[in-house]
Amino acid sequence: VPPRFYVPGARATESVIELPQDEAVHLVRVLRLAAGDRIRVFNGRGDEWEAAVDDAGKQRVRARLIAPATPAPEARVRITLAAAVLKADKMDAIVRDAVMLGVTTVQPLVTARTEIARATIERSERTARWQRIAIASAKQCGRAVVPDVRRVAPLAEVLRQPPCLMLVEPSLTLATTPLRAMPDLDAVTLLIGPEGGWTPDEVAQAVENEARLLTLGSRTLRAEAVPIVALTALRVHWEDD
Amino acid sequence: VPPRFYVPGARATESVIELPQDEAVHLVRVLRLAAGDRIRVFNGRGDEWEAAVDDAGKQRVRARLIAPATPAPEARVRITLAAAVLKADKMDAIVRDAVMLGVTTVQPLVTARTEIARATIERSERTARWQRIAIASAKQCGRAVVPDVRRVAPLAEVLRQPPCLMLVEPSLTLATTPLRAMPDLDAVTLLIGPEGGWTPDEVAQAVENEARLLTLGSRTLRAEAVPIVALTALRVHWEDD
Repeated sequence: VPPRFYVPGARATESVIELPQDEAVHLVRVLRLAAGDRIRVFNGRGDEWEAAVDDAGKQRVRARLIAPATPAPEARVRITLAAAVLKADKMDAIVRDAVMLGVTTVQPLVTARTEIARATIERSERTARWQRIAIASAKQCGRAVVPDVRRVAPLAEVLRQPPCLMLVEPSLTLATTPLRAMPDLDAVTLLIGPEGGWTPDEVAQAVENEARLLTLGSRTLRAEAVPIVALTALRVHWEDD
Repeated sequence: VPPRFYVPGARATESVIELPQDEAVHLVRVLRLAAGDRIRVFNGRGDEWEAAVDDAGKQRVRARLIAPATPAPEARVRITLAAAVLKADKMDAIVRDAVMLGVTTVQPLVTARTEIARATIERSERTARWQRIAIASAKQCGRAVVPDVRRVAPLAEVLRQPPCLMLVEPSLTLATTPLRAMPDLDAVTLLIGPEGGWTPDEVAQAVENEARLLTLGSRTLRAEAVPIVALTALRVHWEDD
């Protein structure tokens, strides 16, 4: 596969498109491509094309769309990963991996035991950073869909968008659903807590909002490994990998 | 669960055992436990006990075994993870996660495209480091079995211990087995290549040695995420989580 470039404005009705500046810089300065070189262009909404560099200047790069191309297939079940925000590089890794594992949306979450305040996250422009990571990850893994990274939200707000699956510890005394009994769904929000877990109040709130409580085996995992394991487990269980 | 300590020499026939020095230091200086405090002791071979600190001196700590305890359950299928050695902290994360995902053995692997030489790995005492990580990970995740971390070995040597599963890219033109067609096994060695993948020669060599070629979906993952995803996928497929 030739190098892939993200051009949000690309549409099938236009034959010549201009690359965004950061993509243009990458094409010219890092990959040192020139007019005539073959590339791929995708628009982040599922469309991808074979293309050729038309004009590679220092200020702007244009490409000619040649024919539709087939990106990596999208999963059948649309998953929104609603993950409690972990410290900097851990959350970066979660966003990157979640995109590779096919989520359609990333919803950063603030919970009672989240160690970073919502205001701090909003001030730090972390959402923009995670969105850039989602783009880079989609480029790398061959998806033509760039998942949307939402603004950080509190649990209560996310619970209002069913159906939700809340990942909980197996020791919980409430009625939980083991993975093998999880029914098939078209779309779901997967809620994953912070290092310290959910509070009993948060679990009760989820149950009140008709979220299902999901358990995964009996072992303790590192917080940043939990989303990878949970997403993989659901995909394999649903035969949607 | 009270804090857990790894005492390789602990046996059911002895009622008072002495902690190894690093565990004793951890008990006294970090956790500040004293005589009478409840702990758990496990021997890394599957046995675990409720115990009590008997005598916590600066030089040595002894504990009294009170009754057998139930550790996290071990998986049904014994998996040896034979993973090509990645750069420092990535390999550390792989060892840690593999233990949490229940492998019984970690076999570091040198392949044609491994970026670190076998001699460098052997000189650096990395095996001892990975073994310490395996112990720490077992302590953290509640397993009473400490997986054995073997000395780094070339692919050919590992292929001599069937049955082997080699994880390959789905683009490969050879006969591969998708996850959902993978038969049940009692024990298996899961071979995972380096960032640059296997060479055609290595895949041919695996096939000659009757290794099965396993594919997992169609997306590209980061090299350090591949073992977590592959181990989770196999466990869920085998309903062995």
